[in-house]
Amino acid sequence: MIILLKKNATQEQIDQVTEWISSAGFKPHLSQGVERTLIGAIGDDRGKIHLKSAAFLPGVETVIPILKPYKLASREFREDDTVVRVGDVRIGGGEFIVMAGPCSVESDEQMMECGYVVKKAGARILRGGAYKPRTSPYSFQGMEEEGLKLLKRVGEKMGMPVVTEVMNTTDVDLVETYSDILQIGTRNMQNFALLKKVGRSRRPVLLKRGMMTTIEELLMSAEYILSEGNEQIILCERGIRTFETATRNTLDISAVPVLKELTHLPVIIDPSHASGHARYVIPLTRAAVAVGADGVIVEVHPEPEKALSDGPQSLRPEQFYRLMDEVNLLADVMRRGIGGLP
Amino acid sequence: MIILLKKNATQEQIDQVTEWISSAGFKPHLSQGVERTLIGAIGDDRGKIHLKSAAFLPGVETVIPILKPYKLASREFREDDTVVRVGDVRIGGGEFIVMAGPCSVESDEQMMECGYVVKKAGARILRGGAYKPRTSPYSFQGMEEEGLKLLKRVGEKMGMPVVTEVMNTTDVDLVETYSDILQIGTRNMQNFALLKKVGRSRRPVLLKRGMMTTIEELLMSAEYILSEGNEQIILCERGIRTFETATRNTLDISAVPVLKELTHLPVIIDPSHASGHARYVIPLTRAAVAVGADGVIVEVHPEPEKALSDGPQSLRPEQFYRLMDEVNLLADVMRRGIGGLP
Amino acid sequence: MIILLKKNATQEQIDQVTEWISSAGFKPHLSQGVERTLIGAIGDDRGKIHLKSAAFLPGVETVIPILKPYKLASREFREDDTVVRVGDVRIGGGEFIVMAGPCSVESDEQMMECGYVVKKAGARILRGGAYKPRTSPYSFQGMEEEGLKLLKRVGEKMGMPVVTEVMNTTDVDLVETYSDILQIGTRNMQNFALLKKVGRSRRPVLLKRGMMTTIEELLMSAEYILSEGNEQIILCERGIRTFETATRNTLDISAVPVLKELTHLPVIIDPSHASGHARYVIPLTRAAVAVGADGVIVEVHPEPEKALSDGPQSLRPEQFYRLMDEVNLLADVMRRGIGGLP
Amino acid sequence: MIILLKKNATQEQIDQVTEWISSAGFKPHLSQGVERTLIGAIGDDRGKIHLKSAAFLPGVETVIPILKPYKLASREFREDDTVVRVGDVRIGGGEFIVMAGPCSVESDEQMMECGYVVKKAGARILRGGAYKPRTSPYSFQGMEEEGLKLLKRVGEKMGMPVVTEVMNTTDVDLVETYSDILQIGTRNMQNFALLKKVGRSRRPVLLKRGMMTTIEELLMSAEYILSEGNEQIILCERGIRTFETATRNTLDISAVPVLKELTHLPVIIDPSHASGHARYVIPLTRAAVAVGADGVIVEVHPEPEKALSDGPQSLRPEQFYRLMDEVNLLADVMRRGIGGLP
Repeated sequence: MIILLKKNATQEQIDQVTEWISSAGFKPHLSQGVERTLIGAIGDDRGKIHLKSAAFLPGVETVIPILKPYKLASREFREDDTVVRVGDVRIGGGEFIVMAGPCSVESDEQMMECGYVVKKAGARILRGGAYKPRTSPYSFQGMEEEGLKLLKRVGEKMGMPVVTEVMNTTDVDLVETYSDILQIGTRNMQNFALLKKVGRSRRPVLLKRGMMTTIEELLMSAEYILSEGNEQIILCERGIRTFETATRNTLDISAVPVLKELTHLPVIIDPSHASGHARYVIPLTRAAVAVGADGVIVEVHPEPEKALSDGPQSLRPEQFYRLMDEVNLLADVMRRGIGGLP
Repeated sequence: MIILLKKNATQEQIDQVTEWISSAGFKPHLSQGVERTLIGAIGDDRGKIHLKSAAFLPGVETVIPILKPYKLASREFREDDTVVRVGDVRIGGGEFIVMAGPCSVESDEQMMECGYVVKKAGARILRGGAYKPRTSPYSFQGMEEEGLKLLKRVGEKMGMPVVTEVMNTTDVDLVETYSDILQIGTRNMQNFALLKKVGRSRRPVLLKRGMMTTIEELLMSAEYILSEGNEQIILCERGIRTFETATRNTLDISAVPVLKELTHLPVIIDPSHASGHARYVIPLTRAAVAVGADGVIVEVHPEPEKALSDGPQSLRPEQFYRLMDEVNLLADVMRRGIGGLP
Repeated sequence: MIILLKKNATQEQIDQVTEWISSAGFKPHLSQGVERTLIGAIGDDRGKIHLKSAAFLPGVETVIPILKPYKLASREFREDDTVVRVGDVRIGGGEFIVMAGPCSVESDEQMMECGYVVKKAGARILRGGAYKPRTSPYSFQGMEEEGLKLLKRVGEKMGMPVVTEVMNTTDVDLVETYSDILQIGTRNMQNFALLKKVGRSRRPVLLKRGMMTTIEELLMSAEYILSEGNEQIILCERGIRTFETATRNTLDISAVPVLKELTHLPVIIDPSHASGHARYVIPLTRAAVAVGADGVIVEVHPEPEKALSDGPQSLRPEQFYRLMDEVNLLADVMRRGIGGLP
Repeated sequence: MIILLKKNATQEQIDQVTEWISSAGFKPHLSQGVERTLIGAIGDDRGKIHLKSAAFLPGVETVIPILKPYKLASREFREDDTVVRVGDVRIGGGEFIVMAGPCSVESDEQMMECGYVVKKAGARILRGGAYKPRTSPYSFQGMEEEGLKLLKRVGEKMGMPVVTEVMNTTDVDLVETYSDILQIGTRNMQNFALLKKVGRSRRPVLLKRGMMTTIEELLMSAEYILSEGNEQIILCERGIRTFETATRNTLDISAVPVLKELTHLPVIIDPSHASGHARYVIPLTRAAVAVGADGVIVEVHPEPEKALSDGPQSLRPEQFYRLMDEVNLLADVMRRGIGGLP
């Protein structure tokens, strides 16, 4: 951490700051600039966020943190890519993984049809929501345990691992008996009690970026899970909130190379929630392959116009087949020509 | 809801849309414009968000909702202002209420000193965090139950009701035995399980706006609480996330008149979290009084440079006295000259 | 346009609104919902933005525009893709076009080296800034006319058309004598006097999206140019401003499929300004190819650490060669497998 | 400027960075932390933004600027408040100044009526647009020179100085013959040619913050004007663009205390453009007084429903009288009780 003093800081103020640094267990280091004095606080300042209180000392202009606030999630801590294993699927191991299924589990028939389509088209993991975080208390809230059972049954029939969202600490035990991956949704990315709870689960976690959170905060949430012992985390960029309204959110595609640089965890993209319109899902999925993501999670529904949630962004079966064709063509080039480069 | 068709929509597509509207239990109403056809779906579409799936039908360009998605929270449902009562304090009843105290409960001594100062200066409610939502797992996470006890004890000694944050459904029962008001923090504004749980509590709820949620979403979260039967809700604007970095967040002061128009619930402001700097808290509190808010919640600490959290935005005691002086001067004018206008 | 009345609007207010609509030259059309009355104003409301003043009439809750505010730029006006021709280069005609060169023209030597590299690697258009929009008055402001001459000379030597920014109406005549394409920068996207001026030029215009403007506003700015008679416009998405700071701006990659749907104009991406870091430029360029953009404009500098502007986001020559290799591999697949699909 | 090296930076890389700093004319200063090495570049780095190119050197993680990039605009450069004088009006001298008038000058009758109302109510400066920056080329573009003449004539009749927007360098000479203050609009805040031109004018400049620019960028634009010699600048916060759509923009009220700290220039607020709705203008104006702004600029129209632009946000005469009453009450308290405090 560096403490920048005001232009007219007095010697007394400088002394007070250096003393304060020492009393907090750090080593002060003074640098005298032409106009300003800087004082470094040498030591590991991670987790000692109250160091920022120095901003309050007389004569201090601002406080500049130097170290990244996460550790276990960082590429520095672990250089090699983490590969998350679910059944025989490996996420982060070079293959481009497609997870697909309906927004909500709605019925046996709908799930079977969806499961059949996505399996046949080449998806590797089946998604489906049983607990739904709806902005309106009057909207369909999901089939809950019934939905979990249905999802699991269809997954088993198709030979596909399944992923579903868990929204509350009290549901984690139940959800993990049915689901192969625990999804933390965008509105719960900073539900710290829930992060700690899934951090103690034996199931891999699909951690979606909050629609309102920075990449650094996403990594801090991963750090919560990692610090509880669960290292099987898949990060998911799903669009952030901006002033643009042509799409539901703005897909932050740059988050993929940024995350690949900062962390060892695999990164996938959710083009369905990012765009909110089925017609943009295929081009954005192509972009996800090309930018170097480890996969996508997309919404597919046999009859989107009858979906109980998120119909407008769900692909019809024939659109999903086309998506898989294009993914295969591009993923093939990526492996041959681009993945091979240093 | 209005469905806008594409310019070149065929008669067959128009028929399909009208049929679809009827089958969803609404009455279709056709309007032929010069270039476009519009079809209204007449009926109460609240809670029937899958109506939006119409966007998926062939020939449809877009779907425009007409009714607001909340009901119990709306000014239309209840014209008179809701007054929240806690002990002998009435929030929303014309008096400008100041809630104050430290970010975190840290020790008996700190709480006593804080309680004494804020009481003497004229605050009506004592705040203090026992469970802290920290972005870093390595940061101080709060004193938990010990903190709750301390807060309650000091509140009783000073004769002030207390408010503290609850972060997890499993903590609600415990927190409500100690705290007079249950605070839902910015990161939990869309933790729907938690909203439902506090909706069944007998305690008033202080609902903070998510740092990246719209005013409409804030009202939808209030609707969750209201629909479970708890009508004692205080809304709190605490800054939203924008591109500006000079302040921690951007205080959306306009949210006060907007909310006063849309809802009957009282509205307060949190200038400490909004700005992130103690030196902006006093002017922003003045603005809160003048814009017509029902109160503020501010952070005060006897020694901000030693605070375990949020030091830089905490007021020193002498600053808090000054804040109360200015609040009193302005609140007096508001009552005399402005509150009296139609 | 649709006018939504308040729940308790009186018959007198309804009459007043219908009268007002008639007096503005439109045909009113009443729809009675269960709770609300809607009144449509039938007629072409483009350019009559003062229709929005209806929001002011008593009893009116809100005004909802129906028609898009642009016409000449819309896909409805012109179904076929516009192809912009510059020398023997065709932008928007199926080929993925790379425009490259330094941020600023700095010297004869630098331009020659850059020109040689980008030509040899396969770029089709040479870029270079002569007038630089710098946030600081103390920063290098560009070589101005000297820079234009240098750029043109190198372009001719390499047999490449050139593109450079014009910032002021008074410079347009000069810039168009040297440059094959006139670039409007992000800060001038709503400099309407400048848009009108280049709308009367015979040179194609590269119109960059404002970092703070919506897709609809970008199309309105294109409409300004089109309405003056210049149909040769290339749109450029270059990142928008959000709360995320890991990248300089947030590349709105979804803008490409959105624009492809709304307009006939070609769309390129500027990954250098969007990300602000050379190390993200290659993956984002791959994403640009895959998402279906018509090209990219990237910054290349022989010695980025000596650049007078934007060094951190400039590619070194060896990085640019690699970028072109990857572009070629992906563009080839796009043509074979994906461009061919319906 | 501080250069932070990567964890594993080699001695050779460290040497290369220190050499680079020296060659750029600065003095390097090494600080060795526990995990990281920092190198300070001592010297005035203002205007030498290419120093950031250091980010490109091998082994460098990031570059942290220390000095603020503006100088003449800073409170450090000039401690006392700048007072802008226009006729007998002093902006920034303690009085709360209201500037008012219609969005656009539309006719002799409309201007006379407006001028009469705002003068009688107590406004000190008359506003009115003659050149209008409209997003649509089909919208009313203003009366241009005819409008300037009208504005001046009414201003003279009422004995009020006038302010109007200038949008293009070629119009500056004309506008300054008619207008007492030159307004730079939000879309031109970074039109650097225009800033330089008004920087050479003898007229005061009202500089509006761009709707998506930071406070620092606003000060950099003021620096452009100051560095050309014009010291009579009034800054204006007029709302920034965020995800919230309940208001047209989000008024960044905190910008007032932030600017008061950073600069000596007076700061006013535009509640009309910030909110976009007449019904929020009065409460926001009250907030402007209480937060410590030097004034407001508001839109008033005798018949808002007939306005050629911005009708929905214009106050009717009776609303404007009420606004002035409330301003006077609050401004009086501010002077007595609050302005007097240290």
